[in-house]
Amino acid sequence: MTPHDMQKRIDALSKKAASGLHGKDFFLTWDKTTEELEAVLEIASILKELRCNNISPRLWDSGLAVSQFRDNSTRTRFSFASACNLLGLTVSDLDEGKSQIAHGETVRETSNMISFMAEVIGIRDDMYIGKGHTYMVNVAEAVEQGYRDGVLEQRPTVINLQCDIDHPTQTMADLLHLINELGGVEKLKGKKVAMSWAYSPSYGKPLSVPQGVIGLFPRFGMNVSLAYPEGYSLMDEVVANAKKSAASSGGSFHVCASMEEAFEGADIVYPKSWAPFAVMEERTKIVETRDAKALADLEKRCLANNAKFKGWQCTDELMAKTNDALYLHCLPADITGVSCAEGEVSAQVFERFRTPLYRQAGYKPYIIAAMIFASKVAGPAGRLSSIVDRAENRVR
Amino acid sequence: MTPHDMQKRIDALSKKAASGLHGKDFFLTWDKTTEELEAVLEIASILKELRCNNISPRLWDSGLAVSQFRDNSTRTRFSFASACNLLGLTVSDLDEGKSQIAHGETVRETSNMISFMAEVIGIRDDMYIGKGHTYMVNVAEAVEQGYRDGVLEQRPTVINLQCDIDHPTQTMADLLHLINELGGVEKLKGKKVAMSWAYSPSYGKPLSVPQGVIGLFPRFGMNVSLAYPEGYSLMDEVVANAKKSAASSGGSFHVCASMEEAFEGADIVYPKSWAPFAVMEERTKIVETRDAKALADLEKRCLANNAKFKGWQCTDELMAKTNDALYLHCLPADITGVSCAEGEVSAQVFERFRTPLYRQAGYKPYIIAAMIFASKVAGPAGRLSSIVDRAENRVR
Amino acid sequence: MTPHDMQKRIDALSKKAASGLHGKDFFLTWDKTTEELEAVLEIASILKELRCNNISPRLWDSGLAVSQFRDNSTRTRFSFASACNLLGLTVSDLDEGKSQIAHGETVRETSNMISFMAEVIGIRDDMYIGKGHTYMVNVAEAVEQGYRDGVLEQRPTVINLQCDIDHPTQTMADLLHLINELGGVEKLKGKKVAMSWAYSPSYGKPLSVPQGVIGLFPRFGMNVSLAYPEGYSLMDEVVANAKKSAASSGGSFHVCASMEEAFEGADIVYPKSWAPFAVMEERTKIVETRDAKALADLEKRCLANNAKFKGWQCTDELMAKTNDALYLHCLPADITGVSCAEGEVSAQVFERFRTPLYRQAGYKPYIIAAMIFASKVAGPAGRLSSIVDRAENRVR
Repeated sequence: MTPHDMQKRIDALSKKAASGLHGKDFFLTWDKTTEELEAVLEIASILKELRCNNISPRLWDSGLAVSQFRDNSTRTRFSFASACNLLGLTVSDLDEGKSQIAHGETVRETSNMISFMAEVIGIRDDMYIGKGHTYMVNVAEAVEQGYRDGVLEQRPTVINLQCDIDHPTQTMADLLHLINELGGVEKLKGKKVAMSWAYSPSYGKPLSVPQGVIGLFPRFGMNVSLAYPEGYSLMDEVVANAKKSAASSGGSFHVCASMEEAFEGADIVYPKSWAPFAVMEERTKIVETRDAKALADLEKRCLANNAKFKGWQCTDELMAKTNDALYLHCLPADITGVSCAEGEVSAQVFERFRTPLYRQAGYKPYIIAAMIFASKVAGPAGRLSSIVDRAENRVR
Repeated sequence: MTPHDMQKRIDALSKKAASGLHGKDFFLTWDKTTEELEAVLEIASILKELRCNNISPRLWDSGLAVSQFRDNSTRTRFSFASACNLLGLTVSDLDEGKSQIAHGETVRETSNMISFMAEVIGIRDDMYIGKGHTYMVNVAEAVEQGYRDGVLEQRPTVINLQCDIDHPTQTMADLLHLINELGGVEKLKGKKVAMSWAYSPSYGKPLSVPQGVIGLFPRFGMNVSLAYPEGYSLMDEVVANAKKSAASSGGSFHVCASMEEAFEGADIVYPKSWAPFAVMEERTKIVETRDAKALADLEKRCLANNAKFKGWQCTDELMAKTNDALYLHCLPADITGVSCAEGEVSAQVFERFRTPLYRQAGYKPYIIAAMIFASKVAGPAGRLSSIVDRAENRVR
Repeated sequence: MTPHDMQKRIDALSKKAASGLHGKDFFLTWDKTTEELEAVLEIASILKELRCNNISPRLWDSGLAVSQFRDNSTRTRFSFASACNLLGLTVSDLDEGKSQIAHGETVRETSNMISFMAEVIGIRDDMYIGKGHTYMVNVAEAVEQGYRDGVLEQRPTVINLQCDIDHPTQTMADLLHLINELGGVEKLKGKKVAMSWAYSPSYGKPLSVPQGVIGLFPRFGMNVSLAYPEGYSLMDEVVANAKKSAASSGGSFHVCASMEEAFEGADIVYPKSWAPFAVMEERTKIVETRDAKALADLEKRCLANNAKFKGWQCTDELMAKTNDALYLHCLPADITGVSCAEGEVSAQVFERFRTPLYRQAGYKPYIIAAMIFASKVAGPAGRLSSIVDRAENRVR
């Protein structure tokens, strides 16, 4: 990209009404206006362009970013580490096993204690329905209070690295991938998306990806079909919200009962396993009682039910029904004959899309960096211009 | 703060006789002269002021800080990470579980092996009487020898992040909090402090905080009363040292047998649980024999004894006896009805002091940074002046 | 060192044919030409000299270095952290326990997912014969493919931090130590080296150090004797390779059956325990079957066999047979009466060489930094010159 093209992109960014991002956390995409989301996508693209041109977008000389992973993570962990490092922050992981939290400390207290020099707090807490999002909001309220009380010298921004409701760093990366594959944000309009349940030998995968997709994609004019077997419905309010935002944005959203139907004529397919919402609710309650037997019984029952839907697999045969669709997945996928005997996708389909899938994942560090950038910088376009002007090399 | 005021503070610092800090470790506050401690407090304040004014006090372009936590930690871990990051060092944690130390390696060897590019080593080792401080001294001797032998290119400074005897980063942060709450170091003089034992449902908390307080506060002219139930005495030599330093500094120190007596007319109260010294000694010996039954028996016996003193709780009733005292705690506190059924402090008292308590904790990163700064920089005042002059932004 | 001397060293470096290092991984020393190895040694020395003169050789403003330790490590972990930090990279550890790798993810996928902003990947995988090296090659192929496919914006360099075959960061550090002790790389020629097995109460130590030594030292004109008890032979192809490279470089290599014979007239001795190759092969197979009983039986059998060779200990008596030899060890050593009842070396010998042993270990951070430098920078000599010219301070 020439300096002239870069400046044109920055000028376009400056016209977006995105000041609402400043000083705010990023919990759910539907907390943000579409223009704000477009600004995040555009900042992510510009940051990527800067790095590819060996220009360092460093915002800080020093500062901490706190990460808290209440569930395993590889790509989100490394994406967060990469984003923070690019901007000049050092990640310090809050490992609850090594802390005094077991001591009976409150969320309010811990949140302040880790934040004296923290600019960002990234949290993954996706396993228990009704918990993850609430936890993140509590952390944000605690540091907001701490900042107002003069306890904290800066207000750390909370970034949702996957909660029980949404997975915005994933779905925004997915969207940026689509924009790049299709050739522009305006190309999203009218595209048909199949967000479909798919079989996996494990039960209990989070709902946040499908929920995030149906809450986000219709807002860009896409026509989203959500398909799942009986009993695998998502959270009611998320579905209601998806319907509403589809209606107001020119996109559409509807639910169907088979992968085949959803795939018919689709431009984009996103077949992925998740647990039934009701099961996740039950599981959350059982976990609280620490009843190991009840948990084992639930697992047995769910796996048996799951097994009825082994036919929900993304195969070449199904792909043939689509409009030469692009296959998406948040990775890692359960690939038939590779990572499991029967899974979400056939090895043939996966192999064909391996490279675009990896590129899809590669947008996440930039999305996270853009979310941080937009929250921390009052005028992102102006700051990006000055970063271009100062022209400091990343590789020196 | 105006640049003029900043320069005045730096000028005042330059008049302190604090060259004895240079090149030295920080183990115990009573290893240092009062003027040296005042210099550390003043450097901490200036570093805080610099950061608040967005001036980066970075001392290093690269360099490691090694942390070793032999006990759980949240606030000290993050304080150390924050302090090192502010000064330009990257923390590398020595996790004994992931190292070859089990291999039978000596302290001397490990200390050198981790220090080839280390500027600082921060250690928490507080659980076993007669161990923690000794371990830190051994580490310091090992790296001193390594430096003299040409094995190490620099001599890492050892910082005590809590040992069996003292917890200097905590008590110095406590003191800086008092200075800020009261309006100056000279205001400490004559203030009455109640350092009191308090009930907790857990036994076996370290002695380092009460020992650190009685060893430090009287040196600034404060009148410290130490209160504890029969059998909960501290280490003899620490008490003897507290008496001696109180006598020579114009402050005072005396022991009393009830929280009520200590609180009477107090300006500052610090009610906190600790284990009886004799129990900690016994526990250390049992741990060495790996006799699980003896350890369980000791715990049972101690908890039963502990339970006799449930009345030692900081309540509004007791606070009413004080001179409108400021409540201190190193956190996390055992709060009645919040983190336990019966604890060190009532929820009412704790809630009233929550904000100042969080501010108290917030000084720790600056105290640690100041300890490092004073040990590493030959003329701290001159260096701070040049940092003000170079005026590099932390948020760029 | 004067600036003039520094420039002379850089000029000498510029004459080495070392462009083959650029853009390449570092798996095995015998993948590299002798001139390339000399270039790495020289870059390491210059980087050390720069740091000692407080000149920062930072190459990056931001960037990740990924570490993956599949076996415990202290000195290599800290050496890698130190090297990356010196060059401006932030280490992010891939902890397989905290990742989704258990999820059934392929090496190809994980390697790309962690590498979006990674410049270097350092791997230790030394325990299973036929696995470690293969794993590293697979990771390198995966990121090479990812880079070619446009998934990765840069190609991370893979550095072998110890595999089942070689331990190049160790043996190159050993060699740099010898160069400094003897007074120049040309002094290595003709020196007699005893690489000898030694008794240890543990069985199953990796073969990579002795294999690395016999594959590297003869290439610099050294005469290497490899001594071990019956049954403790190394991998056939490594031995064959050692013979071949000794023949073509003017050094020599031969195998003998006693420590005494190897030590006779030796200038350098390297007595160290390792497991018989055949045992390591058997162990690898058993580990795959997860047969705990078979593993315990193997251990019992091996320890019994091991115990026959307690006489293989480096003592003063044996040292007296040498030509006033320098004692080497990769540390930690099994020291008789210190870390075990009977071990690889007597306390007297170890104590006499403690300081040089620690210095030996101290070269590892610089060797790792040099491997990274040589792989990342097209013209190392020119870049080092510009680093000298820009003269940025490490301690600011």
